[in-house]
Amino acid sequence: MSESKSLSIDSFMQQFQLRIEQVLHQHLHALPADAEKLRTAMQYACLQGGKRVRPVLVYAAAKALAGNMDNADVPACAVELIHCYSLVHDDLPAMDDDDLRRGKPTTHIAFDEATAILAGDALQAMALRLLSDPNFKIAAEARLQMVHHLAGAAGYEGMVSGQSIDFNAVGNTLSVAQLEKMHSLKTGALINASVLLGALSSERASTQQLDALQRYGECIGLAFQVQDDILDVTSDTATLGKTQGADQALNKPTYVSLLGLVGAQNKADSLCAQAIEAIADFDENADALRAIARFIIARNN
Amino acid sequence: MSESKSLSIDSFMQQFQLRIEQVLHQHLHALPADAEKLRTAMQYACLQGGKRVRPVLVYAAAKALAGNMDNADVPACAVELIHCYSLVHDDLPAMDDDDLRRGKPTTHIAFDEATAILAGDALQAMALRLLSDPNFKIAAEARLQMVHHLAGAAGYEGMVSGQSIDFNAVGNTLSVAQLEKMHSLKTGALINASVLLGALSSERASTQQLDALQRYGECIGLAFQVQDDILDVTSDTATLGKTQGADQALNKPTYVSLLGLVGAQNKADSLCAQAIEAIADFDENADALRAIARFIIARNN
Repeated sequence: MSESKSLSIDSFMQQFQLRIEQVLHQHLHALPADAEKLRTAMQYACLQGGKRVRPVLVYAAAKALAGNMDNADVPACAVELIHCYSLVHDDLPAMDDDDLRRGKPTTHIAFDEATAILAGDALQAMALRLLSDPNFKIAAEARLQMVHHLAGAAGYEGMVSGQSIDFNAVGNTLSVAQLEKMHSLKTGALINASVLLGALSSERASTQQLDALQRYGECIGLAFQVQDDILDVTSDTATLGKTQGADQALNKPTYVSLLGLVGAQNKADSLCAQAIEAIADFDENADALRAIARFIIARNN
Repeated sequence: MSESKSLSIDSFMQQFQLRIEQVLHQHLHALPADAEKLRTAMQYACLQGGKRVRPVLVYAAAKALAGNMDNADVPACAVELIHCYSLVHDDLPAMDDDDLRRGKPTTHIAFDEATAILAGDALQAMALRLLSDPNFKIAAEARLQMVHHLAGAAGYEGMVSGQSIDFNAVGNTLSVAQLEKMHSLKTGALINASVLLGALSSERASTQQLDALQRYGECIGLAFQVQDDILDVTSDTATLGKTQGADQALNKPTYVSLLGLVGAQNKADSLCAQAIEAIADFDENADALRAIARFIIARNN
């Protein structure tokens, strides 16, 4: 990757990280004041910054198909709301019982447990409501497909099942295939949905292109998780913004525990290459997607 | 109400209670086996019977517009999945901390707290996914409107805010207006959405008819809550299927505590009459809706 390309992905990410902050802020501050504490908790859960990988992927996939970026704002916001809701519920005492997230108190610590449960619930509804909002002016069929993909990725067909399998696997040994299945549900499905929603927002994706983007999404989804497992053992708490070694401490099966550190790093490299290969037929508009694949395995938090 | 009409509403309710059991069973058993414990918990949370007031309202509203009952199955299922998810989360230790629901252990007691949180999360996603499923063959615009109404009723614009206000009101005094606002969000929004989704499933509702049905829905939504408050003090635990006097014990503001028992009963009667008045222009196809309004304030559990 030349220096100019490396600079341009940094600037792409910064540009769309800034944009999604504004879009999230706008929608979360447009909620009526009916339940002030709940609204504040929803804002707290979503407006703490972060890498915003999923919305950036929505924009990058829209760009790969030369789509109108304005039409990517709602799906970008929706995937991040789902991601933030999942973090709030994952951190609950009955789940991972985490007090720290991105270096700040988790939502149930900053507010209370009931409010955290409800804020997560409301964020999920909000994400799917935004996609069906009459003000989101793209074809009804495309918006319905987005609802269907996102509700699938968020629910039983994706994230929630992955979380349930993960939770019940603590202290058990999983095979690499079982670990892969769990992560493809827990993390992969939403990352994949981000790519698909971005592509759908362009209203010009062919079935062939959607298939290629799906393969891309599956590879980077897994790569993302492998890198997370690597960072859990190689990074420190300050850089990570969450408790380092948390998975190890919980005796959770990880790619590092199954493949060793070098094996896990090789796997991440290979998945990144496969992701880039999957979109080989796309033109330079897909360079942001290519760069994100590289970023995912190079990030340190 | 003549005896024959009284019999016919009983038979309408029984017919569609049976039908919704089958529809719920079919969809909940069609889930893949990826996360067996989670799937079992979702089934447990939804297949314990119950009055099924919301899905019966979907069918009755569809019938009021002479709609095809087959097109009402998916929205009927969706509103009940949302209702069941809300019960699972409301019963959690951090919320109402209830061990008993419809005379059986609540989901977090029968399984565990993490599984109950996740089952609720997955049921919400499932409801909205069903409405956007390509196999649900009505116009895309109508399905999108259903997603929008249901996500609104379930989320911050409805149920979740109501629950948050209710939770934070424990031990406080609310005015009748504040209590009404809270219940219109907590219970009313989903009941209203049930009526609207049923009407939309007919694909033949005029704006005027939707407005009338909305007024009907608002009145029976409130009437339902007033009757719940009455039953909390007049019924016994066995008939109620949940702990009698639970609201009183929690020092929650209720219509009975604010208006007295007779005042609350008068309010329920008046709301029932207003609901029936709102749909005065509908023909005999709306008799089921009229009968449901009467049933809501006559039920004993």
